[in-house]
Amino acid sequence: MTLTSIYLEQKKNLNKIEKQLESALKATHPVIHEAALDLLRAGGKRIRPLLVLLCAQYGDASRKAVYDSAVTLELIHMASLVHDDVVDDSDLRRGKPTVKAQWDNRVAMFTGDFIFAKAVELIAAFDHKEAHLHISRIIRDLSLGEIDQIKELYHVEQNLRVYLRRIKRKTALLLALSCQLGALSSGCSSDIGLKLYYFGYYLGMSYQMTDDILDFVGTEEQLGKPAGDDLRHGNITLPTYFAIHNHGLSSVIRGVLALKDTKATQWNAVIQSIRDCGAIQDSERLSGAYLRKAIETLDRLPKIRATRSLKEIADYIGKRKY
Amino acid sequence: MTLTSIYLEQKKNLNKIEKQLESALKATHPVIHEAALDLLRAGGKRIRPLLVLLCAQYGDASRKAVYDSAVTLELIHMASLVHDDVVDDSDLRRGKPTVKAQWDNRVAMFTGDFIFAKAVELIAAFDHKEAHLHISRIIRDLSLGEIDQIKELYHVEQNLRVYLRRIKRKTALLLALSCQLGALSSGCSSDIGLKLYYFGYYLGMSYQMTDDILDFVGTEEQLGKPAGDDLRHGNITLPTYFAIHNHGLSSVIRGVLALKDTKATQWNAVIQSIRDCGAIQDSERLSGAYLRKAIETLDRLPKIRATRSLKEIADYIGKRKY
Repeated sequence: MTLTSIYLEQKKNLNKIEKQLESALKATHPVIHEAALDLLRAGGKRIRPLLVLLCAQYGDASRKAVYDSAVTLELIHMASLVHDDVVDDSDLRRGKPTVKAQWDNRVAMFTGDFIFAKAVELIAAFDHKEAHLHISRIIRDLSLGEIDQIKELYHVEQNLRVYLRRIKRKTALLLALSCQLGALSSGCSSDIGLKLYYFGYYLGMSYQMTDDILDFVGTEEQLGKPAGDDLRHGNITLPTYFAIHNHGLSSVIRGVLALKDTKATQWNAVIQSIRDCGAIQDSERLSGAYLRKAIETLDRLPKIRATRSLKEIADYIGKRKY
Repeated sequence: MTLTSIYLEQKKNLNKIEKQLESALKATHPVIHEAALDLLRAGGKRIRPLLVLLCAQYGDASRKAVYDSAVTLELIHMASLVHDDVVDDSDLRRGKPTVKAQWDNRVAMFTGDFIFAKAVELIAAFDHKEAHLHISRIIRDLSLGEIDQIKELYHVEQNLRVYLRRIKRKTALLLALSCQLGALSSGCSSDIGLKLYYFGYYLGMSYQMTDDILDFVGTEEQLGKPAGDDLRHGNITLPTYFAIHNHGLSSVIRGVLALKDTKATQWNAVIQSIRDCGAIQDSERLSGAYLRKAIETLDRLPKIRATRSLKEIADYIGKRKY
C-alpha cells in the first residue's frame, strides 16, 4: 500500500468533498468568490479530509456526517491559512506592505471570517453536540497558536515546552480532531474516537516537526523560499532550539537575530551551522519518537484496512523529504 | 419610561450577562486576557443584550437560553469590533502604522478569532438549531459587510441600494437577530420572533443612518474625531450620497477625494457644504421613515411592558444627538 494508492482508493470520496467545499465557498459576493476560487485552485493535500475518511472506516463511512465533518474541518483549515497569510511584522520590516497589499490584507481577514462562518454554518447541519464543542475549541486553539507564534517570535531562549504547545495548537490538534471526528461521525465508540485522536495528535506533532526540519534542510527549489525562512522571520523552531541548547549556538543565533540588517551571507552561515551541528538529528529523533507513539496507538485499534492506510501515512510522514 | 429607567430595570440581568461575558473571555492566555479586559472595560451600551432581554419578555425571560443568546451575540459584536479596528488602508496612507501597530494588528485579528470561537462554543450549549443557523449567518453577513465597506471606499457614484445593503450587513442584521433570538430563546412563537426581527432590522437601519448623520453634524468633542471622518476615509455614507445626488455636490466631493494631500481647510469646506446643502435633512427623513417602520411593527405585537420599552428605545434613537 502506498500513499498514492490510498489517495486513489479515496478519490471518489475526496471528489465528493471537493464539490461540497466548492458549494460552501460559492458566494454571490464577487470578492469572496474570487478568493475562494484561488483557495480551491491552490488545492493542497486535503490531508484532513483524507484522515476523516479513513478514520470513518472504523464505523459507517457512508454517513453524511462524515462528509460534513471533513468539509467543516477543511474549511477551518482554509480559513486559518487565509488569516495566516495576513501580512506580518517581518514583511513590514522588509519594506512592505504596499498600500495595495495592506488593502488586500483586510479583505483577506474578512474572507477568512467568511470561511469560518461557513464552517460554523455546516456544524448546525449535523446533530452532534460533542463534535460541535470540539470544533469551536479547535477554532479557539488555532487562534491561540497563532498568537503564541507572534508573541514568541525572537524569543531565543524559549524552552521546549513552549515550542511543543505552539505546534500542538497550530497543527496537531486539528489533525487529532480530524481523526476523532472521522470516527465519531461514522458512529464509532468514543473509545475508538479517543485512540484515533491520539494517533492524529502524535502524527500532527511529528508532521510539524518534519516541516520545521525541512525548512532548514530543503533546497530553495523544494521550499519555494530560501532555507531557514522560519529563523529569518524570528520563528524559533525545533532545529534552532536544539542548536541553542545542545550545540552551543546560542550566541551566534542571538547575534544574527539582533542585527538590524543582516546580510544574506551572514544568514546563510548561521543556517549552515544549524544544519551541521547535530540539531537536525536531534530534531529527527524527537519527531521520530512522536511518530512511533502514533504508530503504537494504531496497534491498539481493530486491524482493518484503514489501520494499514493510517500506518502508511505515518511512515510517509517519517520519510518525506519536502 | 425613559432609556435610563429601562436600563435600571434590566440592571440585574445585564450584570448577569456582564459576568458571563467576563467568564467567556477569561483566558489563561496572557495576551488574550489583556485584550479581553480592555474590551470589557471599554463597556459600550450593550444594546444587543438589552434587546435580547426585552424581547425575551414576550416569552419566559428567565430561561438560560436567553442569557446564552445575549452573551453569544455580544461576543460576536465584540469580535467584529476587534476585526474592524485592524488598521485599514486609510490609516496607512497617513503614514501609519508603525511596526508596533502592525504587530498589534495581527494579534488583534487572532484575538477576534478567539472571541468568535468563544461565541461558537456557547452556541453548542443551547439546543436550538434555528438559532445556530441564524448565528452562523450573522457572522457571515458581518464579514460580507466589512468587505463591502472596504471595496466600496472611494466609489463616489454608488447608488442608494449599495449603501443600504452595506449598513444592513454591518449593523441592522445583528440588531434584528438580537430581537428575534430574544423571542425564540424565551419560547415565543416564530411569528412573534419574526415581527421582532423586523423591528430590530428597521431600528438597526435607522440607528446606522443616525450614526452616519452624526459623523457629519457632531462636534469634534462629541465624536472624539473631526467631523466628516467617514468621508475623509473614503467611506461614502448617506449624507454624502444625498449631497451628490440631490444637491449637486458631486464634482466638489469627487475633487476632494481625488487629491493626494487634501488640506484640512479643503476638507472642512466640503464637509460644511454637505452639512448645509440639505443632505442632512434628506438623511434624517430616510432614517425617520425606517424608524416609523420599526414602531409600526411594534403595533402588531402584544401590548406588554416590553413593547413600551422597545418604543422608548426607538424614540431615543430618533432623537439622539451623539
